[in-house]
Amino acid sequence: MRKLLLIGMGPGDPNYLTLQAVEALNRASVFFLPDKGAEKAELKTAREEICRRFIKSPDTRFVSIDIPQRAPAGDDYRAVVDDWHARIAARYEALLTSELADGACGAFLVWGDPSLYDSTLRILDRLRAQGLAIDYEIIPGITAVQALAARHRIALNRIGEPITITTGRKLAAGLPIDADSTVVMLDGDETFAKIDPADLEIYWAANLGLADEVLISGPLKDVAADISRTRRQVREAKGWVMDIYLLRRGGKAKA
Amino acid sequence: MRKLLLIGMGPGDPNYLTLQAVEALNRASVFFLPDKGAEKAELKTAREEICRRFIKSPDTRFVSIDIPQRAPAGDDYRAVVDDWHARIAARYEALLTSELADGACGAFLVWGDPSLYDSTLRILDRLRAQGLAIDYEIIPGITAVQALAARHRIALNRIGEPITITTGRKLAAGLPIDADSTVVMLDGDETFAKIDPADLEIYWAANLGLADEVLISGPLKDVAADISRTRRQVREAKGWVMDIYLLRRGGKAKA
Repeated sequence: MRKLLLIGMGPGDPNYLTLQAVEALNRASVFFLPDKGAEKAELKTAREEICRRFIKSPDTRFVSIDIPQRAPAGDDYRAVVDDWHARIAARYEALLTSELADGACGAFLVWGDPSLYDSTLRILDRLRAQGLAIDYEIIPGITAVQALAARHRIALNRIGEPITITTGRKLAAGLPIDADSTVVMLDGDETFAKIDPADLEIYWAANLGLADEVLISGPLKDVAADISRTRRQVREAKGWVMDIYLLRRGGKAKA
Repeated sequence: MRKLLLIGMGPGDPNYLTLQAVEALNRASVFFLPDKGAEKAELKTAREEICRRFIKSPDTRFVSIDIPQRAPAGDDYRAVVDDWHARIAARYEALLTSELADGACGAFLVWGDPSLYDSTLRILDRLRAQGLAIDYEIIPGITAVQALAARHRIALNRIGEPITITTGRKLAAGLPIDADSTVVMLDGDETFAKIDPADLEIYWAANLGLADEVLISGPLKDVAADISRTRRQVREAKGWVMDIYLLRRGGKAKA
């Protein structure tokens, strides 16, 4: 049986790694490094730096996986993602069987936590369902959600109240009915600037844990334009931006 | 200006600590250790073990804080918590001013992450609002939510769908309307066994990261009684239990 470790790396800064993750980095003999193209070269560099800094064995091997582009998401987001995952799974299967000997241990380094808006776990489950004999283990990592709260020095929840974690795509259809505190991820469309800002506070961050990390907070109606402008500046300066925010009904953000 | 570090310790196992947390453990000269009484002596021991294992300076001091009991929560949960926090804040203020010299750095060790259902941050904000000159920094830690997903080897979200994190108290009023995946914390009343189980899958865990960690999953209607029984056994065996679970509409738990 082959074994894979899905190692959460946290949101950027290598110091977000857990001791368990550092130990896991040294259990694997082969690292599979998905390559999504040139636009996120800095993330690839950060991942390589983590490997260089923490992996002790000189015999560890690194195998790049070219990740196919996802088709533009139309009305059927899940079908598009499903098709994309099927194509990624085919690449994974070919490399896992050719590069990982029976009984050997490989690893994937996942930004944030493998359980939150990451597809590696789903793709492995798909391959196992198709009959690939592979076991795996998940090593949790600090998420951007937690780094957002820590850097803004806020609690995610108000006393005894729930938290919703959702996507820009979902937010575009309206704030969750039950939401008290809503964390929004994967919002490339700047949905925060399109919703009714009345009474909403926002805590926004881009590139958490990296050198160009930036934080903005305040009433959404007052800071939305500033966030849009800053977001575009960050993206222009290095070709990409990763951002996340918390929305909460006004005046009670710290309650 | 005094400084405090709020250090997330993760949900039990010291290996969940981040490198940033280990570094922070060695920046503080005084640790404030809230003492909630005998019932969670094992948690106190685990915290002491983390200090012994990672703190290098022999001059580090440890100050216990007796935490007053919270009044039983009646209809006005927030008012009861608010009163309790006021009493805790008074204890904190007395000790922070007497035990921490101006310019010195102290620390609190928080189970899980200081931003998720923990009151330390709120109590410090309350003291700052009352005029106490103290700065603080938050070091995120792995939450029980993440450990739950990792140990069950599941994603928290389904593809593109939101996650709600809520409490047993809130769940008793009904599953969130918008919920796709609902993580429930702080459910001492076993609310999972009282709601309509139709079509729900549950992923449950108790004492994550500790020696008596236990996991149960399956259709809620089939496993609720087993979870209740197991939960009581764990609690009887050592006097307390910390549990958490994910609820998801049936058959799609891994989708």
